[in-house]
Amino acid sequence: MPKRIRLAKRVVSESDRLASQLVERFQKARVFVANLMSSPGSGKTSLLEETARRMAGELRMAVIEGDLATDRDAQRIRRAGIPSYQINTGGGCHLSAQQILDALERFDLADLDVLFIENVGNLVCPAEFDLGEHRRVVLASTPEGDDKPIKYPVAFYKADCVVLNKVDLLAATDFSREAFLGYVRGVNPKIPILELSCRTGEGVDGWLNWVRAERKAAAKGLPRSPK
Amino acid sequence: MPKRIRLAKRVVSESDRLASQLVERFQKARVFVANLMSSPGSGKTSLLEETARRMAGELRMAVIEGDLATDRDAQRIRRAGIPSYQINTGGGCHLSAQQILDALERFDLADLDVLFIENVGNLVCPAEFDLGEHRRVVLASTPEGDDKPIKYPVAFYKADCVVLNKVDLLAATDFSREAFLGYVRGVNPKIPILELSCRTGEGVDGWLNWVRAERKAAAKGLPRSPK
Repeated sequence: MPKRIRLAKRVVSESDRLASQLVERFQKARVFVANLMSSPGSGKTSLLEETARRMAGELRMAVIEGDLATDRDAQRIRRAGIPSYQINTGGGCHLSAQQILDALERFDLADLDVLFIENVGNLVCPAEFDLGEHRRVVLASTPEGDDKPIKYPVAFYKADCVVLNKVDLLAATDFSREAFLGYVRGVNPKIPILELSCRTGEGVDGWLNWVRAERKAAAKGLPRSPK
Repeated sequence: MPKRIRLAKRVVSESDRLASQLVERFQKARVFVANLMSSPGSGKTSLLEETARRMAGELRMAVIEGDLATDRDAQRIRRAGIPSYQINTGGGCHLSAQQILDALERFDLADLDVLFIENVGNLVCPAEFDLGEHRRVVLASTPEGDDKPIKYPVAFYKADCVVLNKVDLLAATDFSREAFLGYVRGVNPKIPILELSCRTGEGVDGWLNWVRAERKAAAKGLPRSPK
């Protein structure tokens, strides 16, 4: 077992080296990059579809999609009107910096204002891997229950923004909004928490405003959050 | 990278060695063991609470709980009336055979008919690790969307039973029951699919009957499914 731990450290540090290449490329292009993570089915793709539909005329955007299998999500994003590129990880449980570097061959970063990375649906492993992003967004949804921030604390601790999706289902579930907000604050006291429903559109404006503000800051040389 | 792959193989084979110790112990005690896996918030704990409440007088049951942090789930199970033991993995994304071996120090298997293992909420990594169980159960829930079986195929391919939870929310979501059933059949043609709602109780009897039948088979020396 000690051998395995040493190797894991080497792999992470190689991953960090690749992540700093990404940081340089993103900063040089002045493109704002957000890495979205959540459980499967919390609504990452739905949020990006809404973002594409509502802001495609305003900002030049693209999405890198990560999934074990299928290109369904990339297709959904293209149908919503913006470019996307699908990474299939096979069995892999998270996106890696190398995969992002490879995907960038498909985009001219100079043509973009915003690049979204939709990570593999997994509230555990993606949190451990820096993809050079400016900001991390963690999504949760009301049917998953209000205790996810304390049961999966690393993802919430390392995030810069929490999106609570599916607020339209609040009344149909046992989710306590107060408990959820308290749990998030316990793990990450100052993080913005955006409550919305991709299905009804309620609250999505708050998310778009967050993207606009962060993108504006990135264009001026936004410093990355510590990862 | 080749070095890493070789090491991963060694780790898996050590894990398999420990899993076969578990198989022996479970078979000797004639206890039926089911390993439950799903995304965070699909309802694994809720299903086990219902199982405890409805079958505690009929079968001697216990639960081993896996979470990154907190002992909330073990507490919920105890309140529902059966013994439970919480494993906290720290950042770990799945339960390991060694963790189950350690947890068994807390139980006398001879006193049990059924042992449930609730894995870490993660639809990717737990599927790779054999815990010596007779049967694997994968849960999905309607708000997660109907495409999870094709986007996370390994978990569904390696499972022996699919539970579709939160059918009470069907009308409030865009979930297509027909699409879901088709996707499951595409990955795992003959697997039983149990549709239920832990919240309303609808369909839970089907699950209890599945547990009864598998437990009866295990008491007679049920062969394990290939993992």
